[in-house]
Amino acid sequence: MKTILILGAGLSSSSLIRYLLEHSAENDWQLRIVDRDLDLVKQKIDGHVNGMALSFNALDSEERRPEIEEADLVISMLPARFHVDVAKDCIELKTNLITPSYISAEMRELDEAAKKAGIVIMNEIGVDPGIDHMSAMKIIHEIQDKGGRLTSFKSFTGGLIAPESDNNPWNYKFTWNPRNVVLAGQGGASCFIRNGEYKYIPYHRLFNRLDYMTIEGYGDFVGYANRDSLSYRTTYGIEDIPTIFRGTLRRPGYCEAWDVFIELGMTDDSYQMVQPNLTPRKFLNAFLPYNPNKTVEVKFREFLGKEREHLYERFEWLDIFDGENQIGLHDASPAEYLQAILEKKLMLDEGDKDMIVMIHEFEYEWKGQQHKITSHMVNIGEDQVYTSMSNTVGLPAAICAKMILTGTLKTTGVTLPIYKEIYQPILKELEEYHIRFIEKEFSPSVSGQ
Amino acid sequence: MKTILILGAGLSSSSLIRYLLEHSAENDWQLRIVDRDLDLVKQKIDGHVNGMALSFNALDSEERRPEIEEADLVISMLPARFHVDVAKDCIELKTNLITPSYISAEMRELDEAAKKAGIVIMNEIGVDPGIDHMSAMKIIHEIQDKGGRLTSFKSFTGGLIAPESDNNPWNYKFTWNPRNVVLAGQGGASCFIRNGEYKYIPYHRLFNRLDYMTIEGYGDFVGYANRDSLSYRTTYGIEDIPTIFRGTLRRPGYCEAWDVFIELGMTDDSYQMVQPNLTPRKFLNAFLPYNPNKTVEVKFREFLGKEREHLYERFEWLDIFDGENQIGLHDASPAEYLQAILEKKLMLDEGDKDMIVMIHEFEYEWKGQQHKITSHMVNIGEDQVYTSMSNTVGLPAAICAKMILTGTLKTTGVTLPIYKEIYQPILKELEEYHIRFIEKEFSPSVSGQ
Repeated sequence: MKTILILGAGLSSSSLIRYLLEHSAENDWQLRIVDRDLDLVKQKIDGHVNGMALSFNALDSEERRPEIEEADLVISMLPARFHVDVAKDCIELKTNLITPSYISAEMRELDEAAKKAGIVIMNEIGVDPGIDHMSAMKIIHEIQDKGGRLTSFKSFTGGLIAPESDNNPWNYKFTWNPRNVVLAGQGGASCFIRNGEYKYIPYHRLFNRLDYMTIEGYGDFVGYANRDSLSYRTTYGIEDIPTIFRGTLRRPGYCEAWDVFIELGMTDDSYQMVQPNLTPRKFLNAFLPYNPNKTVEVKFREFLGKEREHLYERFEWLDIFDGENQIGLHDASPAEYLQAILEKKLMLDEGDKDMIVMIHEFEYEWKGQQHKITSHMVNIGEDQVYTSMSNTVGLPAAICAKMILTGTLKTTGVTLPIYKEIYQPILKELEEYHIRFIEKEFSPSVSGQ
Repeated sequence: MKTILILGAGLSSSSLIRYLLEHSAENDWQLRIVDRDLDLVKQKIDGHVNGMALSFNALDSEERRPEIEEADLVISMLPARFHVDVAKDCIELKTNLITPSYISAEMRELDEAAKKAGIVIMNEIGVDPGIDHMSAMKIIHEIQDKGGRLTSFKSFTGGLIAPESDNNPWNYKFTWNPRNVVLAGQGGASCFIRNGEYKYIPYHRLFNRLDYMTIEGYGDFVGYANRDSLSYRTTYGIEDIPTIFRGTLRRPGYCEAWDVFIELGMTDDSYQMVQPNLTPRKFLNAFLPYNPNKTVEVKFREFLGKEREHLYERFEWLDIFDGENQIGLHDASPAEYLQAILEKKLMLDEGDKDMIVMIHEFEYEWKGQQHKITSHMVNIGEDQVYTSMSNTVGLPAAICAKMILTGTLKTTGVTLPIYKEIYQPILKELEEYHIRFIEKEFSPSVSGQ
């Protein structure tokens, strides 16, 4: 019998737990799951005989170490900043570890110790990071294996609302942490490289410099730049690539409208607004010029200008001109007020489903000709527990867990799923769960601009 | 004989030292001046018998305490963050202290201890803060004394190039620390209140929302908002004022053009650019969209758009399209690269003079009618040692020093020059140094919008 210890049973653990419980009988697994919220754990285990709900403090090393010692594998779904401490315990107690989060510099330093302990610490094995790495590396390796030279890699991921639930003028609902959506892109310029030219986009222009894409059957998307595209050159071993760009997907119009919030200063989380009892109207007016002879509506229309007047109804639909009802926050930042306004309109309705979309574009030279491959994946959630986000984050980690416990995956050390022996079986099994990439190869054209 | 200890002999100490030395014989003063740069001190003393150059480490409490103990007054021209520690020494050793810097919260807490020690700790007695307080409080008190109700206070200060030295398309030269100019306005939204409405301007729109002013004989100016106007309500004891706005002055066109740098992301100091050997052209291109079919000039023109095309020549004049000569920095932030580009063109030429401009606008109700007063000051530097900045920072502190040492100023505790007994004699004596406010009262109109 093998024991799996899962730290954290939040939203993104649902599909992970379900998969492992479903495969527990055949593999003789025992799941021990801990969360601050014991009821949540029990709900997710749903009476399954191979699941045990625990209620210790997973952030306390003393409390978790006896559990880690007994386990064959730990899956940490804790906030990313706790992973390194968990990893240190795992190394000492010689227990394998999986986390869906980015490898931190501190985590990377544990590589040798993990190898010495004979354990694997698998990171970045969710959706983004995770499925993005695996699906991209598959094609990058195919191109390299046949002797092609990769010249361009662009990759976009978006957590969106499913088409059947898409019924508002923003073509967006909060399918994930609203605060992260409001603060998206903050904290520094976005950097990428295009045909050898380094490009930097400041936050206040991020939603203004967009790429446009279409997926057959799913319509149009736009992508804005992620903060750091450059580090993927090292991660993917493509240091000399002339073009690399990673972005986030939204539906057309969303970014142009979101840019209005940024321009006005409404996404700022760095200070508290001093006025009490703000209504959406007063909140908006605080960012518009003073003019006692013009209504807030007129000033806002003037701010939008001719070019953006088609966006007006999106804001009207948000009840942003409402001068009657207070937002209900005090001493809050602009970002917090904005979030509260948006949450009144952009939360999921009953029965709504989410959707994860991923699009890769590769260009490469081979035998003197320019080639292009696109690869895309669209996945729609089952319901509001087994969301697409939960499935795409949890299933890669769960499949990887199976590979570790069954001995299929023999690697040790601090690693991530960029190697064939890891991503091939995972991508294959993900297809059974409708997480499937559609690849297209475009006819070669003569190389050159 | 009285002893004055001056900590720091940098640019802004020149006029302070000159005034005190000039008045040293009649008042029987001995100046002891310390700076890291002993030659600098000697140069400023210029052989005067009442000046003594010292070379200990003024930041080291142990080294400065014997000097503070011997002195009757310390004037700290050190960077603002060191003032509190100096103040603690002064309290313990019962020596008066003057600093030109803003009172920090920590400094304020020393008020009682200073009173107990029987000393005065005078702060904010330079130009901005300093002369702005004094000239504004004079009029605010006059309005209040006759029973008027202040309804609006706007105040602008600018450190600019004198008209006779103003010979470039930016109508600007670095008359002060260039780094501070490049980073001006960063670090949070600007906040003010207008007719009871709180207004917030994010940094990326700060140079875009401007006030326009004219001073007879000196031409046109524009003002952009300072970060925090609201705190002046408490400082000036005008908590209920419906309109308060403080801003920085530039010549017309400067702000619109500077806004282009901000919009592009060139003033960002939060990350290092990764490309080596940047020329101004490559630096600019890093912030413009990729387009192999368009030159940097064309892309920049498109970025400016029709409305701002008149600004193009300002940028051309900065040699920003220069693709030949490297900027000569490595691993620098955008702000550092921009500063280096600007320093090649915007430094003072020999014989250039600086200019400090201050403009206040007051509105008040009195006997049922609406009144308006404006007050402005224009001061031009003598040369590049006794600049207007040095005169306007140093002379108020120097005059205040005289008042303390001669016993004219009897107040104790942590204070600033907002009281009649302080500002009246100082403003009066400043007129002898051509630091003179011209006040205008406008004919009353019937109160109301």
